[in-house]
Amino acid sequence: MHEEKYPLVSHPHDPRFTFLRSLQSASGRIKSGKYLIEGIRHVSRCFEQRVPVELMFEIPSILSNPFGQRLARRIRQSKVPCIRLTPHLYQQLSLAAEPQGIGAVVRQRWHELSSLKVTRDSLWLAIESIDQPGNLGTILRTAEAAGVSGVLLLDSVPDPWDPACVRASMGSLFSQRLVRCDIREFTAWARRSGVAVVASSPRGLFDFNVFRCRWPAALLIGSERSGLSDQLLDVADFSLRIPMRGDCDSLNVAVATGVLLFALSGRRQ
Amino acid sequence: MHEEKYPLVSHPHDPRFTFLRSLQSASGRIKSGKYLIEGIRHVSRCFEQRVPVELMFEIPSILSNPFGQRLARRIRQSKVPCIRLTPHLYQQLSLAAEPQGIGAVVRQRWHELSSLKVTRDSLWLAIESIDQPGNLGTILRTAEAAGVSGVLLLDSVPDPWDPACVRASMGSLFSQRLVRCDIREFTAWARRSGVAVVASSPRGLFDFNVFRCRWPAALLIGSERSGLSDQLLDVADFSLRIPMRGDCDSLNVAVATGVLLFALSGRRQ
Repeated sequence: MHEEKYPLVSHPHDPRFTFLRSLQSASGRIKSGKYLIEGIRHVSRCFEQRVPVELMFEIPSILSNPFGQRLARRIRQSKVPCIRLTPHLYQQLSLAAEPQGIGAVVRQRWHELSSLKVTRDSLWLAIESIDQPGNLGTILRTAEAAGVSGVLLLDSVPDPWDPACVRASMGSLFSQRLVRCDIREFTAWARRSGVAVVASSPRGLFDFNVFRCRWPAALLIGSERSGLSDQLLDVADFSLRIPMRGDCDSLNVAVATGVLLFALSGRRQ
Repeated sequence: MHEEKYPLVSHPHDPRFTFLRSLQSASGRIKSGKYLIEGIRHVSRCFEQRVPVELMFEIPSILSNPFGQRLARRIRQSKVPCIRLTPHLYQQLSLAAEPQGIGAVVRQRWHELSSLKVTRDSLWLAIESIDQPGNLGTILRTAEAAGVSGVLLLDSVPDPWDPACVRASMGSLFSQRLVRCDIREFTAWARRSGVAVVASSPRGLFDFNVFRCRWPAALLIGSERSGLSDQLLDVADFSLRIPMRGDCDSLNVAVATGVLLFALSGRRQ
């Protein structure tokens, strides 16, 4: 039986399990530089994108999906270290409503500002702050779909490797270039690279419907509650607003980001 | 003390409390035709939009925000029946991370298809199915901001009065025209009113960036997982796709709806 080739972890104090659990907290992720992914779709996308998987965990009694079973077999054959978990331990790791019985540990990948290649018509996303990791994940998924070349996370953006963010990103974390920097580094980079900084703000000067962008460009967004800080609004070359009808005074931050990114990226062609 | 003018409910079997709890379930809401709202923003918007509040509940020890306190006073003065709840009972009602100590019971408001006024350039939203009430709420909020004249909920759309939907809608439920109908009624209405049915689909014929719509129009969206059914794709006059870059094969359904609604509504001007 191939199942005997990889160990079963059943005790909550087993160091392999306590390591997995540690990745649920920001401090554990910072210390190890790794994060958890979960579910067939995520593990499959990660594997196909050749993101190095450090460890796969599997719960054979739960992993009933044939595609998932084949995926697990392929990963085992590729010499990735694998463990089995008991369903009881797995419950403590999974956020899913219907857990699929497969997950992995992946190394975080950060890029340096200086390594970004700013081509003539490239679109970038800079995030000043976001309160909810789930919103950040949806924004990363949207950014990939809109053809964003990289995402710059400024000072107060939460950890993109948070399980709620990873889950909502639907695998976009595996291919997106993520950069951590502060506001000064961001503005210096934009100036040096000739990137137009386009702020999103309810009080923006331009209606996004009629705005023609200078390229390359970076859309700059702020948090759900308070939007962009004055400091960042001041450094922006342009500020865009989404005109609202009805009694609505704001949109969900991921929806607003999607509306603006697709409008900018569609006019680039 | 004015506090003595309205009763304190402290026992979990008090029928006033069991009624509030019953509104957390779909069956309780259907039976009564009412729903719960919670938090200062929701109660305030509801009151300002003159949506008749059937009952207000307040938790004086938690309602510390001065604006919220003034709001509660105004509602009490307007002769709305009011009760106080103990913090312990309130905990069982609130979904909020930071409960604000105020909420209300509101009567559901449905519109009839036949009562909708279809003006020449009006934009409508029809939803075939949505899995998560939170997504439905975000979509309703987005629809209001994009100037949608009414939302038609087809067969398998969840209850818009679900607490998670109410919460995510950020008050858009109070002003939006909501209609429940089946697919046949919807298509008959669209034909009769000259409304162009525009389906959203990853395999849509038109890139939304270049699509010019015939007006009036209804955007038609399907569920997170499976999109629109073949039956509805067949009745659509047009089908739109959002071109995706990267390895992304889909967007969050609320983001996709926002991108399409704002693109349609922006070109209407």
